[in-house]
Formats: sequence, structure tokens, C-alpha cells
Amino acid sequence: MLEHMLHHKPLWLVLPSDPDASIAVSSRIRLARNLADLPFPQRCSSEQLRTIIDRVFAAADTTPFLHNADSYLLEELSSVERQLLVERHLVSPEFISSDQPAAVLISRDETCSLMINEEDHLRLQVLSPGMQLNEAWTVIDQLDTELEQMLPYAYSTRYGYLTVCPTNVGTGMRASIMLHLPALVHEHKIGSVMSAVGKIGIAVRGMYGEHSAARGNFFQLSNQITLGRSEQEIVHQLHHVVSSIIDHERKLRQSFLSAAPHKARNAVGRAYGTLKYAEILKSDEATDLLSTLLMGIDLNAFSTVDRSTISELLLDIQPAHLQKRCGKDLSSEERDVERARIIRARLQKQEDQESKP
Amino acid sequence: MLEHMLHHKPLWLVLPSDPDASIAVSSRIRLARNLADLPFPQRCSSEQLRTIIDRVFAAADTTPFLHNADSYLLEELSSVERQLLVERHLVSPEFISSDQPAAVLISRDETCSLMINEEDHLRLQVLSPGMQLNEAWTVIDQLDTELEQMLPYAYSTRYGYLTVCPTNVGTGMRASIMLHLPALVHEHKIGSVMSAVGKIGIAVRGMYGEHSAARGNFFQLSNQITLGRSEQEIVHQLHHVVSSIIDHERKLRQSFLSAAPHKARNAVGRAYGTLKYAEILKSDEATDLLSTLLMGIDLNAFSTVDRSTISELLLDIQPAHLQKRCGKDLSSEERDVERARIIRARLQKQEDQESKP
Repeated sequence: MLEHMLHHKPLWLVLPSDPDASIAVSSRIRLARNLADLPFPQRCSSEQLRTIIDRVFAAADTTPFLHNADSYLLEELSSVERQLLVERHLVSPEFISSDQPAAVLISRDETCSLMINEEDHLRLQVLSPGMQLNEAWTVIDQLDTELEQMLPYAYSTRYGYLTVCPTNVGTGMRASIMLHLPALVHEHKIGSVMSAVGKIGIAVRGMYGEHSAARGNFFQLSNQITLGRSEQEIVHQLHHVVSSIIDHERKLRQSFLSAAPHKARNAVGRAYGTLKYAEILKSDEATDLLSTLLMGIDLNAFSTVDRSTISELLLDIQPAHLQKRCGKDLSSEERDVERARIIRARLQKQEDQESKP
Repeated sequence: MLEHMLHHKPLWLVLPSDPDASIAVSSRIRLARNLADLPFPQRCSSEQLRTIIDRVFAAADTTPFLHNADSYLLEELSSVERQLLVERHLVSPEFISSDQPAAVLISRDETCSLMINEEDHLRLQVLSPGMQLNEAWTVIDQLDTELEQMLPYAYSTRYGYLTVCPTNVGTGMRASIMLHLPALVHEHKIGSVMSAVGKIGIAVRGMYGEHSAARGNFFQLSNQITLGRSEQEIVHQLHHVVSSIIDHERKLRQSFLSAAPHKARNAVGRAYGTLKYAEILKSDEATDLLSTLLMGIDLNAFSTVDRSTISELLLDIQPAHLQKRCGKDLSSEERDVERARIIRARLQKQEDQESKP
């Protein structure tokens, strides 16, 4: 199962021409919803959880976005396959560790996904490339409206959408943007930026949501507050804050290049050289090196490789991706060798293409 | 002056097919001699020192090895040019810091050189590629015999050749071999090997003689004792000791490769990648990386580059070589950039040649 995912790239990896897309990697909105006529998942029987899955599958199939979507019962998926979905940002780490009936729907282009029986009955998600919060909002709002016509959502006129965790009550919405901020990290300014945004209700996380560290200088910013503000207000505020961080990052990158061009190109060149020739690459090191390379490409300090190759590699070198591609479980040491092999092969392929007349 | 040296490589860098040559980089013999009819250099007047230079020049010109050799008065050479000669192992660091009349003769292929008014009146040197102590001895013995016919050497039937420093009295000979011992260093066995050879009267130094550190895992082994043994005995003993070290090094290299092939190729590949793409390379780092690459080539763990390119680079990335080639003084930072540029260009050139049909 899931093999087809290894042969195409998710739509959110197809970079828009938007110049901000070199810093804002992707935008995501998720909505938490529950059915009014059943207890919250933790209080449901297995029977009831299966009923929820059936009802949501049926409702989703009537929507344009999730009609004929790929559907998976959690119990059908191996542990590598579950991890693969986390690595592709389609489900949460919490979802795959459940031992209760749960399921997920995924649109073919991986833009829309719907977890059933995670913390809430429904967790809808829309992922867009670059800085496209508004676009993601338009899609998820439409999907949500269509589902609501089929499913009796738990809704209070006073509190809005009711959710298991009070931090989601109201809009049930979490809007987030993945930012690539190597210059802010390099110049030791990331701490003050992050503590400033924290004060205005914006949470900062690593690449894989809550509890994950910021690897490769990727940071996920999202709204903390779901109650007392409209969805548009939340999107607007996040957009505004992120725009100013992007500005800051861009200026630092430029001044790094103009103040010390050799030093900048040295860092980028060494990253490329190591990726191109290493035989053993641990995940953290590879991610950091690809991150440095990504910055170099944005600064036009390096042209041997393009952004989309790097973005694809960042996805493909993850443990479950490596193992799914090899068709077997790999030890940590074997993964480090396989990771290096894939990176070498892709970079070589791109060099070969470049050198063709 | 000396520009021509940048355009050809010294004969001792032309590697023999001898399999030991991958570990024993070069062999050298030098003889200390003094004229019987003049005081030792430290006690000579400038006038007398100039007389010595003239007499040795005239005598050397009658020998086949130094006929028409390049001759330089120390005072004619800029500080970069002096350093260039040290980097090429043609003169000693002590020689170039003298402010007294001194001179050097160098055969065109850089095999023979003759310092005049270093510590002794004459310091003859023959440099051979690989493990060729006997060959070097044959040449220097012949050169010495020819010079002796023209110059009255200070010689005592009891002590042998008389020299300024008592540690040179007797044969006046120092035989040395430059060894490349990365595996012994990597496996932390170099200390015990070196202390063992020290006990049998063999000195260990770095790349540039006394007081220089062992950079890039290159070690120079030479006899300490000059008195009470014949030249052949000295050469024989050094040859014997070095052969067993070469054996040890070779076995460790092989077992490193067979025990951990990925790890070995990883080290070599990363070294190549960094050399190929770095924009800033300090001398020590570059030497260490080239040293790792050299070991990889010997183990057939890396084929993108050949030994002779590495040997030439080890010579050409030295500070005076860089500055002489640029035709101007360079700051330490400028040298690091220029060093990286030269290495990138050479490695790229070799890749281009390899990829030609």
C-alpha cells in the first residue's frame, strides 16, 4: 500500500513562482470537527468509532475535493506506512499511534486529507505550496461546508465548534506556515523573533508539529487562539506576522552574501560537496546540509542544483520513505547508507541533465 | 626569479611504479661537508663566505649532476622566493633566515641541490621519489666524490668528515624517508611506532624537517647517528625499519577498508566533496583532506582523481607557491580563497578529462 506516493510528488511541493515561496515553504489549515450525535472518540466504543468512519467516508465521497480519495483504515497500514504518512504531513504522529478504529482520506494530489477518530471525530486538512493561506482557507471552507450538509456537526451558538481539547473550541482552526529561516538562525536572531511572536499568540514548532525539534532551520508557525476570532482574522494575523519574518530573513540573507560572499559560497559549496560524495548521511546532518543548499540556491550563490530537487530530497530521505522504497525494514546504519546513495544519485542525475547540450 | 619552477614538477614527484611508493612518498639523503682551509661559516667574514660560494660554484659546475644548475645567491631572493624553495624541500628553513652571504645550486629536475653556507660550508642533497634510498645514495656518493676532487674537504681519519654540529660528524649523512601514514594515525598506533623507532636511533619529524609538525599524516624518518657506522649501514637500517612500518600501514589500511567499507569510502568521498566545492580552505585542512584522498586512491576506494594530481596539489597549495603564482603578496584570508580556487580548478580539470570519450 501507498507505493504510488513514492512515484509522484505532492502538489504542495510544486513551488509557486511567488518570491516568498523560497522562505515560506508551505501553508496549511486544519479544522477540528465532531459529530453531534455521538460521544467524543475517547468515549466511543469500537463499534461507534467504526460507524463514524463509515459515515465520514460516505459524506466525503459526495464532495468534489474528496470524491474518490484514497482511503485507509489505520489497522491496514504497517508501521512504516503509517510513518510515511506522517513524513508527508498527511496525518499527525498522534493519529498513527492509536489502537482504536481510525482512518484517513487523502486526495490524490495530497492537498486535502481527513483524519477520522484522531483526537476529534474529524480533522480536515488542506496543504498548499508557498505562502497561500488564503487559498488554503478558501478550499477548506468549501470542503467543510459540503461535509456539514451531510454530517451533524457538534456546534454551540455560544462557543462555536465543540472539540475534545478546549484549545480548539470556536473555529476549530489551526492555520500554519512552514518557514525556512537559516539566516535568522545563523545570525542568532531566531530566539528573539520566536519569543516576540509567542507573545501575540503564535506558536512555533518544528517540522512535524508539536514536540518536534526545528531541524534544518524549518519552523512551523501557527495560531494558538481559536476562540473569539473569525477564521479570516486568524489567517490575516498569521499572514501579517509571517510577512514581516520573511522580510527580516530575506534582508539577513542578502547582507550575509554581500558582506562575506566567499564565506557564504563556502558554506553552500561544502554542503553540496558533502551531499554529493558522502557514503553515510544521518538524517539530521542531511537535512541541515540540504537546508544550507536551499539558501544558497535562493541567493543565486549556487546553481548546480534546483529547489525542487532539494524539496523532493527533503521528503524522500526520511526513514519511512527510505524503507518503503527499499521494500524492507532498514537498520539506522543501513538507512544512513541508503540516504547517502539516494542523494548522490539525484544530484548526479541533475548534473548530467545540466551538462547535456 | 624561480617562476619556471611553477611550470614543471620536480622529478621526485614523478611516482615510480613501486607499490611502496604509495606509502613512502620520497627518499632523501644529505651530506654535510666543510672546506679544510677556511673557518666554519659562523666564524667566516663576509669576504670569506663569498669566496666559499665562488669556489663551490666553480667546482659544482664541473660535475655532471650540477653542471649548468640554477644558482641563486640568497640575497637575490625575495622572502616569498626563499619560502618557495623551502616548500619544495630544496633548502632548509634555517638557510633562508640567514643574513650572511649564502647561495644554493639546484639541478633543473630538482633532484640535486647544494646549499652553501648553511650551518656547514656545503650541504648536498639528493631527493628521489618513493622508496629509493639506495638510488639516492648512489647519486649523492658520486656527486660528493666529484666535488671532493675539486674541494679540500675537512676530514679526520679518526672522526671522518668534520662538521659544525657534533651530531653530524662522521659520515655527515642524514638519510630520510617521507612516509604517509594515515591508517597508523587513524588507529592511534602512530605513537607506539614512533617511540619504538626513536629507541633505535631514528628521528621522526614533520613535513619540513626539524620543529615542523606532522601535517596531513606525513612523517619524515631519518637516522640520528652519523658516527661509527658506514653510509651503507645507515641506509640499510633505515630501509629495514621503514619497510616494516610500510607493512604495518598497508595492513591497517586494508583492514579498515574491509572491516568498514562504507565508512572508509565515506571519509574519502567527503574529503573529495569538500575539496571540490569549498571556497575557503586553510592550509592544514586542505593538507589533511588531500591526505585522506591519497589513502582512498591507494585503496582503490576512489577513482575520480589520481595520485599525481594530489601530490602536485600538496606542493602547489603552500603559501609561497600560491603567492608566487599570483605574482603578489596575499593575506592569510586571500590565500585560503586562492588555495580553494586552485584545488577546485584542478579537480574539475581532471573530471573533465575523465569524462572525455
